[in-house]
Amino acid sequence: MTSEFDLIARHFTRPTPSADLGIGDDAALLRVAPGHQLVVSCDMLVAGTHFLADAAPEALGWKTIAVSVSDLAAMSAQPRWATLALSLPAADEAWIAALASGVHACCAVFGIDLVGGDTTRGPLNLCATLFGEVPLGRATTRDGARPGDDLWVSGQPGRAALGLAHLLEGRSLAADHSGDCLEALHRPQPRLGLGLALRGVASAMLDVSDGITGDLRHILERSSVGAELDEGLLPLDGLVAACGDPSRALAAFLGGGDDYELLFTASPDERRQIAEIATRCGVPVHRLGRVTARAGRLQLRRQGDHVEALDANGYDHFRTVDSRSA
Amino acid sequence: MTSEFDLIARHFTRPTPSADLGIGDDAALLRVAPGHQLVVSCDMLVAGTHFLADAAPEALGWKTIAVSVSDLAAMSAQPRWATLALSLPAADEAWIAALASGVHACCAVFGIDLVGGDTTRGPLNLCATLFGEVPLGRATTRDGARPGDDLWVSGQPGRAALGLAHLLEGRSLAADHSGDCLEALHRPQPRLGLGLALRGVASAMLDVSDGITGDLRHILERSSVGAELDEGLLPLDGLVAACGDPSRALAAFLGGGDDYELLFTASPDERRQIAEIATRCGVPVHRLGRVTARAGRLQLRRQGDHVEALDANGYDHFRTVDSRSA
Repeated sequence: MTSEFDLIARHFTRPTPSADLGIGDDAALLRVAPGHQLVVSCDMLVAGTHFLADAAPEALGWKTIAVSVSDLAAMSAQPRWATLALSLPAADEAWIAALASGVHACCAVFGIDLVGGDTTRGPLNLCATLFGEVPLGRATTRDGARPGDDLWVSGQPGRAALGLAHLLEGRSLAADHSGDCLEALHRPQPRLGLGLALRGVASAMLDVSDGITGDLRHILERSSVGAELDEGLLPLDGLVAACGDPSRALAAFLGGGDDYELLFTASPDERRQIAEIATRCGVPVHRLGRVTARAGRLQLRRQGDHVEALDANGYDHFRTVDSRSA
Repeated sequence: MTSEFDLIARHFTRPTPSADLGIGDDAALLRVAPGHQLVVSCDMLVAGTHFLADAAPEALGWKTIAVSVSDLAAMSAQPRWATLALSLPAADEAWIAALASGVHACCAVFGIDLVGGDTTRGPLNLCATLFGEVPLGRATTRDGARPGDDLWVSGQPGRAALGLAHLLEGRSLAADHSGDCLEALHRPQPRLGLGLALRGVASAMLDVSDGITGDLRHILERSSVGAELDEGLLPLDGLVAACGDPSRALAAFLGGGDDYELLFTASPDERRQIAEIATRCGVPVHRLGRVTARAGRLQLRRQGDHVEALDANGYDHFRTVDSRSA
């Protein structure tokens, strides 16, 4: 007899050529390449906290894997395998099939075999664990930033926050920008190629899931440094064009979460190489400011050249999306 | 500023001497021993499906890790590391501290470093992923059972089901047995020593989470064999003593979930060695019957020597604990 449970599992079962043993036993068997470290990251996505309850299932499946790919990209690690645990309120097969197609689409793009998981009944919850490889000692961590380093970010942080405010609060967006902002929110593009190419170039790196100021705090803490952002360098034009309000654009850039861009530091000697890497990867990068010596101090140099302290608190998951503001 | 989020993370952060990099970066960095495969298992526990909403948090923390240790034991693999993702409805620090103490207690007993995870707000959900090691090609899988092999189980399956029925339906248990049954339900003891010792001895193995007949079905499918249980061999005396009803005892033994005992097959030539291993590990084992040639057929030979077909369906997680019966 085929149970609902079996039906669900079937949607998530695909061949796993890079695993010695995939789905179907008590555990998966994997072989890490000699001379490499195993890199593991785990993210849990909950309805109402990380996504809206009516999120489209295909995009949700994509995002469930993509946010962990972004973590591995930030370590300069190559993703290889994933497990996915699901709690679902009901066995709605069309919804589950769409979710699975998004999961498989993201796995296919980034070369990941889905090797195991768990499916159970309960409030909607998605927990992906991703396994990657990095040559021994070559991971880019958060603790290597040095005073004098440049501070960089990829892409256009802030779009996801504008998209969320548009959905939740009806805050208007220019018609030719709303699609981009919603795409950034619903279907983030992890910067894997960039993260791999920055191995040995970036001195510290992480992915921006909770907003630039909030996540930058982790680099400051782990590296025992400070940072100064220069407002004149920040890529705000696209956000201003989208929302029509410079201060709202700045807030979205500094405090908005969910963009999954890479925030990294590097010696000024690397500027030309970073520009070349960005061109090769097809991902714009923006220099935001510099790393300073005073541990934990995060500042913004405004256009008029006065300097403001920045609150380094990020998005706290104990607030829900419903209480978030852009 | 310390957020609720930081407070929670603090409870789950301990030194991770066996990891190259533990909690605090985008991902953990681990080194798998040369000549070994990585073994990965993932379990999601949801309130109302896997445990009662008022479960004691310390026992719940223990069980969250223990059920995945049991999966690795069934592969004859040594657990090394774990990640834990949590969704919590509120930041109740005393409750979280007790949960964390149960998690750490189980990790300490089985030599596991907690290397990462995620903490978020949402309906109570616990997702543990365990990572272990096994010498290349030496894992015990589900596909090695051969006709003529003996069928074995460790310990006393059925106690957790009697304990659950006692809690949910008020079904009486003998006073001197109820503690054992509730302990089996709330604080399962994964049979790691036994699982490791059976490497190369058992021809197939899994852990019994969903009931013997349900889980045995997985061995029958993967090994393309059948099985016949012999009622006269089944360890029912302890269950009869606990519940006072032979047919209820048999149902709990065959269909009850949540015991996390090891179900395995082995050549009859191994009987003496298995008895020695069981004695050495301090875990009783019981021979239940034998593996047969007819793929998928599962039978019970009753005391009067007539043979009955057994329904091979296990516990389906799309039924909740509230609808389970022993």
